Amino acid sequence: MRIVVVGGDAAGMSAAHTALRAARAAGRDVTITVLEATGHTSYSACGIPYWIAGDVASGDDLVARTAVEHRAAGLDLRLGARAVAIDTDDRVVRYDGVTGPGEVPYDELVLATGAMPIVPVWARPPEGGLVPGVHPVKNLDDGAVWLDLLVAADGPAVVVGGGYIGVEMAEALVRRGFRTTLVTRSGVMGSLDPDQGERIEKAMTAAGVTLRTRHTVDRLVTEGGGDGRVRGVVLDSGERLDAALVVLALGVEPATALGAAAGLPLGEAGGYLPDPGGRIGPHLWAAGDCCEVEHRISGARAFLPLGTHANKLGRIVGDNLLGGDRRFGGATGTAITRFVAGDVHLEISRTGLSTAEATAAGYDVTSLVTEGTTASGYMPEAEPIATKVLADRRTRRLLGIQIVGGPGAGKRIDAAAAALWGGLDVDDLAGMDLAYAPPFATVWDALQIAARRLAERI
Amino acid sequence: MRIVVVGGDAAGMSAAHTALRAARAAGRDVTITVLEATGHTSYSACGIPYWIAGDVASGDDLVARTAVEHRAAGLDLRLGARAVAIDTDDRVVRYDGVTGPGEVPYDELVLATGAMPIVPVWARPPEGGLVPGVHPVKNLDDGAVWLDLLVAADGPAVVVGGGYIGVEMAEALVRRGFRTTLVTRSGVMGSLDPDQGERIEKAMTAAGVTLRTRHTVDRLVTEGGGDGRVRGVVLDSGERLDAALVVLALGVEPATALGAAAGLPLGEAGGYLPDPGGRIGPHLWAAGDCCEVEHRISGARAFLPLGTHANKLGRIVGDNLLGGDRRFGGATGTAITRFVAGDVHLEISRTGLSTAEATAAGYDVTSLVTEGTTASGYMPEAEPIATKVLADRRTRRLLGIQIVGGPGAGKRIDAAAAALWGGLDVDDLAGMDLAYAPPFATVWDALQIAARRLAERI
Repeated sequence: MRIVVVGGDAAGMSAAHTALRAARAAGRDVTITVLEATGHTSYSACGIPYWIAGDVASGDDLVARTAVEHRAAGLDLRLGARAVAIDTDDRVVRYDGVTGPGEVPYDELVLATGAMPIVPVWARPPEGGLVPGVHPVKNLDDGAVWLDLLVAADGPAVVVGGGYIGVEMAEALVRRGFRTTLVTRSGVMGSLDPDQGERIEKAMTAAGVTLRTRHTVDRLVTEGGGDGRVRGVVLDSGERLDAALVVLALGVEPATALGAAAGLPLGEAGGYLPDPGGRIGPHLWAAGDCCEVEHRISGARAFLPLGTHANKLGRIVGDNLLGGDRRFGGATGTAITRFVAGDVHLEISRTGLSTAEATAAGYDVTSLVTEGTTASGYMPEAEPIATKVLADRRTRRLLGIQIVGGPGAGKRIDAAAAALWGGLDVDDLAGMDLAYAPPFATVWDALQIAARRLAERI
Repeated sequence: MRIVVVGGDAAGMSAAHTALRAARAAGRDVTITVLEATGHTSYSACGIPYWIAGDVASGDDLVARTAVEHRAAGLDLRLGARAVAIDTDDRVVRYDGVTGPGEVPYDELVLATGAMPIVPVWARPPEGGLVPGVHPVKNLDDGAVWLDLLVAADGPAVVVGGGYIGVEMAEALVRRGFRTTLVTRSGVMGSLDPDQGERIEKAMTAAGVTLRTRHTVDRLVTEGGGDGRVRGVVLDSGERLDAALVVLALGVEPATALGAAAGLPLGEAGGYLPDPGGRIGPHLWAAGDCCEVEHRISGARAFLPLGTHANKLGRIVGDNLLGGDRRFGGATGTAITRFVAGDVHLEISRTGLSTAEATAAGYDVTSLVTEGTTASGYMPEAEPIATKVLADRRTRRLLGIQIVGGPGAGKRIDAAAAALWGGLDVDDLAGMDLAYAPPFATVWDALQIAARRLAERI
């Protein structure tokens, strides 16, 4: 049996190693080839902003497993091998390798090509590539580029995009001492409701980040230096911001050109649509950020490019390739980040649907933000926490929770995520037995006060 | 309508104020009398060790609501009024008040008398009271006594009891600079399994606490000073420990003498047995630490003296007194504490049943401890975390989770508590969508790795 995996990061390598273990356990002879377009495998893309910030000493620290280790485990890993076509009739993948074109036949093919950063037209010079000083944050090579850019830069930074990467890069740049402006077409952290987003904006402003929300970038300024490097950013308002560095943090999109060319169906967001077992066609599988996953609360597909789902789905595919019958249980839209700079330590998390998402999914949404503390008010650990709970008015079912608060606030989202996973209602969250001791919580945990207050209003 | 509440702390005052609000909302004329034996109301008993440790400046900070505030809200609060008898026929409570005996008639009576610290025979001198230097940690007066004792003490401390209060007092004493020995008849934190308890013992030893596990106290030594103060403790092994201070942390028992004398049924642990609505008899209600509550996982009654249940049940009783139909959903045995001293920062939490409890409840218990980190290994926030997951072999249902780890470990228990509340199984915990970002978790959260590894073994 010949398995080919396209993409050697979280999903692909989870699938490959799980299949390898399953094959050995079953005593089956299986060849697993992994085609990876870059020179890197199994790295933590989420760690790159912290590498840039200086929390992580080396890009090597972000690599969970090196190429040498993958090969030693028994994988036929081909680095610098960019898959360019799939022939689903002859079951062959064609690729451009470091020594020229190649092809590899498969019995089963796993597409784990991930996602690509969105690069807007204004960032692309006519001669191709990117304007010097302007760069995205996606893979390890990008991280290395950023470290070089930071050393060379002699002016302020502009982050374009207010999502997770935008906020994390703003943290990194402020902590590195750069005067930083964040430009976003909506509010900051648009995956939360605007009222929670405003709390984040306030904290970022307090830490010295200049915000330009509800603005877009019209064009870059490169004139004046004679070297083509970025000098500034012009917004839709006409405002010109000086910029020696511009972070492209406008999000990512599924890298599915390979499958699209082979006629594979794609979802609304452009991702593959694996069934719960990871299948996208005969002898074809997909996992990771190139997929749209089932959302347990909306009941629809969602593009949620996160390592958590990539690892889980990769593992499921790996088992099922060898005849297993594992199923992905879906996602509930859980995510977390932080903004820490100077005196500001803000944790931000969410699970389920936002008000806009829940309304679009047909729910009769009711919600409430409750302010509390992360520990008993008399303890030095007490920090503010604002918890927004969303429920369906008809069924009282929990739809989503959003947390913005100080140290200790963010990971509380997991209790809410577990409640969503179990399909629980707002009364369950208010009544359940969460942990209390003065350094850790109020006697009714902030999450429960929030749920209880909403429950009383429905 | 005349409501009388016996006990003015968490459960009693939750009931009283909830009833007051409900009465006002319904436009009903209700008199609510609260009899409180001490001079304090609505204080955080759990905060006392942190007051003693010096984290909290004043005992007043532990008071959530003063007597003046309770009275201003409309309660007839009688401090220093110790209820001594209930006449359930004539519906009268008799009490010893500051100015002599009194009585108060009731239409509905709420017993919220809490729990009393266990004071062993060896701590009671023939002349009554306690040996000077020996004291429990239960109410605000105890806290004030401890602050005086700490100032006066010129020798080492012995903590007797290795549960939550014992560990918290050991922390307080070590941080206050006392040479401290903890004596416990089992291992430390016996509400966790012994393997997890050993991790706690190791950390406490590293922080300078001397442990005498699996030992009991035979007698105190008071000779030598001529003042009757404690000088030492003699263990069952014959070992003599010097002691200028002895903390009684042997646990608490329900304070139910009042109801017992009135013929009310008590449970195995000696607590009242309220129905889910809080009723213990005609016109009789109970809430708080004087009760045994329904345990959702064992299906049996459990004595779980915690402010969390006291507040919840108190509120339910308060609503139901006025005709409401609220029900207590039960407990899942969640608890958390920490031991922080010197370089040691250990967080300890548990939910559900321990192996011994689950076995006694008839489950076919399988379990596994998994060591992980609280954050991505390359982040400075990464701290060790050991997670024990217990499940039923037949149904795969989660039975309990126990966490011992560094900063950020403890409150993770809430996700497990939510999973237990929802009756979820070990595959749900492994598969659910918990929050990941490098400063907060590994890509599979420690809790999920632990669940997944156990799931693979069942």
